[in-house]
Amino acid sequence: MAVYTDVSDDALDAFLNEYDIGSLVAFRGIAEGVENSNFSLRTSTGDFILTLYEKRVDPHDLPWFLGLMRHLAARGISCPLPVTGRDGGALRTLCGRHAAITTFLPGVWPRRVQVPHCRDLGAAMAQLHLAGAGFAATRPNALGPAAWPALLDASRAGADSIQPGLAADLDSALARVTHAWPAALPRGHIHADLFPDNVFFLDGRLSGLIDFYFACTDLFAYDIAVCLNAWCFEPDFAFNATRARALLAGYETIRPLSDAERAALPVLAQGAALRFALTRAFDWLNTPAGAFVTRKDPLDYVRRLRFHLGIKDFHAYGL
Amino acid sequence: MAVYTDVSDDALDAFLNEYDIGSLVAFRGIAEGVENSNFSLRTSTGDFILTLYEKRVDPHDLPWFLGLMRHLAARGISCPLPVTGRDGGALRTLCGRHAAITTFLPGVWPRRVQVPHCRDLGAAMAQLHLAGAGFAATRPNALGPAAWPALLDASRAGADSIQPGLAADLDSALARVTHAWPAALPRGHIHADLFPDNVFFLDGRLSGLIDFYFACTDLFAYDIAVCLNAWCFEPDFAFNATRARALLAGYETIRPLSDAERAALPVLAQGAALRFALTRAFDWLNTPAGAFVTRKDPLDYVRRLRFHLGIKDFHAYGL
Repeated sequence: MAVYTDVSDDALDAFLNEYDIGSLVAFRGIAEGVENSNFSLRTSTGDFILTLYEKRVDPHDLPWFLGLMRHLAARGISCPLPVTGRDGGALRTLCGRHAAITTFLPGVWPRRVQVPHCRDLGAAMAQLHLAGAGFAATRPNALGPAAWPALLDASRAGADSIQPGLAADLDSALARVTHAWPAALPRGHIHADLFPDNVFFLDGRLSGLIDFYFACTDLFAYDIAVCLNAWCFEPDFAFNATRARALLAGYETIRPLSDAERAALPVLAQGAALRFALTRAFDWLNTPAGAFVTRKDPLDYVRRLRFHLGIKDFHAYGL
Repeated sequence: MAVYTDVSDDALDAFLNEYDIGSLVAFRGIAEGVENSNFSLRTSTGDFILTLYEKRVDPHDLPWFLGLMRHLAARGISCPLPVTGRDGGALRTLCGRHAAITTFLPGVWPRRVQVPHCRDLGAAMAQLHLAGAGFAATRPNALGPAAWPALLDASRAGADSIQPGLAADLDSALARVTHAWPAALPRGHIHADLFPDNVFFLDGRLSGLIDFYFACTDLFAYDIAVCLNAWCFEPDFAFNATRARALLAGYETIRPLSDAERAALPVLAQGAALRFALTRAFDWLNTPAGAFVTRKDPLDYVRRLRFHLGIKDFHAYGL
């Protein structure tokens, strides 16, 4: 839920004058996404998304994100394509923010995840992993294992106010996960945030992937582990192995997993759950009262973490 | 900024099946409006707005609002036209809320108000006032003078926490305004909430009026008084008489004001400022911390109120 920056008429007019995309027809803030300000923009030539990059995105990373999207779109991945202006550039400034226009993707994100969604998601994720090859620049995962100790330090004092014992639980999980973290698995560019609200479907088929602003260069199987967390739990936090099996089967129609990747899925899923528990705990403790962002409960991911810590091996994921 | 209710895939599909407007192409929450949940809805036949009516709207009023919009649209006012389903009805339920689909209006609301906006607004408001004739049902102004004492009572205990002395100031203004309130001016259906974000412009011309959920049957000149507050102050709360003059001149190109209406403008503008100060004070004191609505500062309207209390007569509005 986010429009952090309002855009004045004159500023928008001047900005659009940098592009050859026609004249303004409609402009509405979009109530989705929590990192940036997004607007649906209609011009006389079509529909676009205007994004203003807010505080959480490092501006030095923006050329990489936009370059990756362009690379992926050129290889058949249905993702937003950055629109270039008359000067050939896709990144400029608007209202003091870095800003870009991308193409509009039709589709609706699934509010109620079903098994076929997971199968399509798996296949699309594997296609994304393969299509990233050849994009030479890399971006370290700023929210990967190396970042977790500092994130936990920043929340340790307040964690027990969220739930008594939480700081100790997270400390223990962090030690266990980082000790077992695999290093030598296949790597490449991953999305790293493929939650349902970043995946569009149209007429029952996956129509696009959006929001590449956590994308990075990391283990392919870590992207799967994020999705096992984001797509395969019921509202009561029961794990749905049918969905996980479909997700993995869909993935393997495009890119089969190695034995080492399969074996690493539990620790990767623990790590992914820990990553979201840590960032949510940080946000929970640092979101000012009255801010117009819905705080997301970190305990939702602590529950997922406990599931992944409690399983025997990757067969729990339906494999 | 508002999407209060999320809509599941199945519920949306079932809802759209009640209409003959084609199949779903895109669906996004809109980050504007504070009363209801609004979604931009694209189908294979065009663009629409889906509104879920939240707590503040009395469901008994919805047929009146939708009927007024249909009446106005049929008389050439560019406003959302309620779309009827296969059963002929425009109002149904979705996710436990009353809900309606209306047509999509192109245009962008002005972030920086300029004099020509005010002239066009005045003319469009007068057209709306004339076009409302013949819509027989009436709706009392639920936020008119009769409602102000109870609103002030509800905020009196907390008002001085907003600003010391505020309760006494509001009490004094309320007594003065209600004593001088005019009764015998021309009446009809008014919008009652024509703030800039409810008025769209396209290529420099007014393209539509939206959000009729405060519309009611009241003094025409009160609608003007709301706009004098909403459109004619600078960010530093200085009154801009040039904008007011343009607004009134635009209005009078369509519907000339009587001498009594002109003379009443100051007290009507005081009342309009008081109405928004009171509802904002109530919301300020009753919005839970962490709610994802930006609280609007009631003092913005207390400052406007002081201006209208301090002028000599309607000539201050540029007449």
